[in-house]
Amino acid sequence: MGPLSLNTVTVKQRWDLPHCIEGCARHGIPAIAPWRDVLQAMGVAAAAKQIRDAGLSVSGLCRGGMFPAPDAAGRAAAIEDNRRAIAEAQALGAACLVMVCGGLPEGSRDLEGARAMVADGLAAILPEARAAGVTLALEPLHPMTCADRSVLTTTAQALDLCDALGAGTGVALDVYHIWWDPEIARQIARAGDRIAGFHVCDWLVPTTDTVFDRGLPGEGVIDIPGIRRMVEAAGYRGAIEAEILSHRWWQQDPDLVLTLLKERHAEAC
Amino acid sequence: MGPLSLNTVTVKQRWDLPHCIEGCARHGIPAIAPWRDVLQAMGVAAAAKQIRDAGLSVSGLCRGGMFPAPDAAGRAAAIEDNRRAIAEAQALGAACLVMVCGGLPEGSRDLEGARAMVADGLAAILPEARAAGVTLALEPLHPMTCADRSVLTTTAQALDLCDALGAGTGVALDVYHIWWDPEIARQIARAGDRIAGFHVCDWLVPTTDTVFDRGLPGEGVIDIPGIRRMVEAAGYRGAIEAEILSHRWWQQDPDLVLTLLKERHAEAC
Repeated sequence: MGPLSLNTVTVKQRWDLPHCIEGCARHGIPAIAPWRDVLQAMGVAAAAKQIRDAGLSVSGLCRGGMFPAPDAAGRAAAIEDNRRAIAEAQALGAACLVMVCGGLPEGSRDLEGARAMVADGLAAILPEARAAGVTLALEPLHPMTCADRSVLTTTAQALDLCDALGAGTGVALDVYHIWWDPEIARQIARAGDRIAGFHVCDWLVPTTDTVFDRGLPGEGVIDIPGIRRMVEAAGYRGAIEAEILSHRWWQQDPDLVLTLLKERHAEAC
Repeated sequence: MGPLSLNTVTVKQRWDLPHCIEGCARHGIPAIAPWRDVLQAMGVAAAAKQIRDAGLSVSGLCRGGMFPAPDAAGRAAAIEDNRRAIAEAQALGAACLVMVCGGLPEGSRDLEGARAMVADGLAAILPEARAAGVTLALEPLHPMTCADRSVLTTTAQALDLCDALGAGTGVALDVYHIWWDPEIARQIARAGDRIAGFHVCDWLVPTTDTVFDRGLPGEGVIDIPGIRRMVEAAGYRGAIEAEILSHRWWQQDPDLVLTLLKERHAEAC
């Protein structure tokens, strides 16, 4: 089983990036996945140095994407921001840049149009990504986020984009986003060595918020070990990244959360 | 465009079935789709008579399904209940029996097992459905309902089941459940004359409840006319059934809701 990685959003309300890096080192968590807000707050060079000094690997940088916008200036600004994200991922030596591709532009019902903006945005930044050696990990998000976060909703759709874009692209698979998909086994096998990231958390019953009510692995109904075995059978050997967006867990002591994540990594992933 | 149908859940907190029937007649809404709770409260024979006397057609009966259960007794009870639902649909002359197939059994993470229970349950009741001339309309539900309402999550999966089960099965397509699906155009074309029901409501941004926060057509981001044209191109000539599960709209005067539904049927569907 791949090593545990802490996605920093999991403890975002109490720990900045220096605390996350120090916490991973202290808890024996060998990898980390920063979000760009905490990375920029710390400074990329300082973060890269502290992460390196702590002996951590970087399973991914969260996040690029968010390409659709109502006008050309907005789309160009998104592309520029993604170029900065690629540079940051390169500076960190991140295994991938996770791409949350964006929802419908404000006021739009044109889903196909938004999907074309995503494809165009990815094509625009791909040369920089290849030059930097940074894999763009397209993350299909749960269909309940289609309007406001990701018109990329299925693994099949993400792999179709990878097929079209070619080298330098892959997928980031989060069990929370894909567990319901009847195509999951076939698509994970199809993904093969294009799986650039694997994220875990759990689906709670009931789920009271479409974004911020995830559970720790084992708290919910997802067969996480079953999906983990599928990605391993496809050839994935990278980290198991815990990314828990949760108003509930954000209230808790981060040291408790990291202790539980280590337990759940061993027992529920 | 198909005629408007009122799904009774849309006004469930203020109107019982007699009021719904009378309201449809008064507002010139030519079709109705009762839920079984209000149907049973009124009595099936009395409901069938009042609906017939009012000149309404029945676009569907909601709902059969809910097959998965932790033990064999529970699964057998579900199958018996579905047989009663078939008889009720036949008594009403309903265009279909809408099948909401059920989620994971309590305490289970075995999604494939739950899906097998759905297939087994459908196969068990299909002879009665065929004998009664009642089409079982498999309704794929939004993936956010996979754990607790429907392990049937995509149109492709529903059509695969129809392929396996054969005559007497079809699909009920609700724009709310399928709008995000990259496969939608291809699967609706594949469905062809198996589209047994077409439901409308809208996806709100933000969505504050995974079940009870739907909008009236036009309030949200779904391209309803685009999807309606797809189902018409596939050959569908049935009703456009408005099914709005909404804590917000349930507070409103049902006569206002029906007035708005007629407007939205003309302008936003």
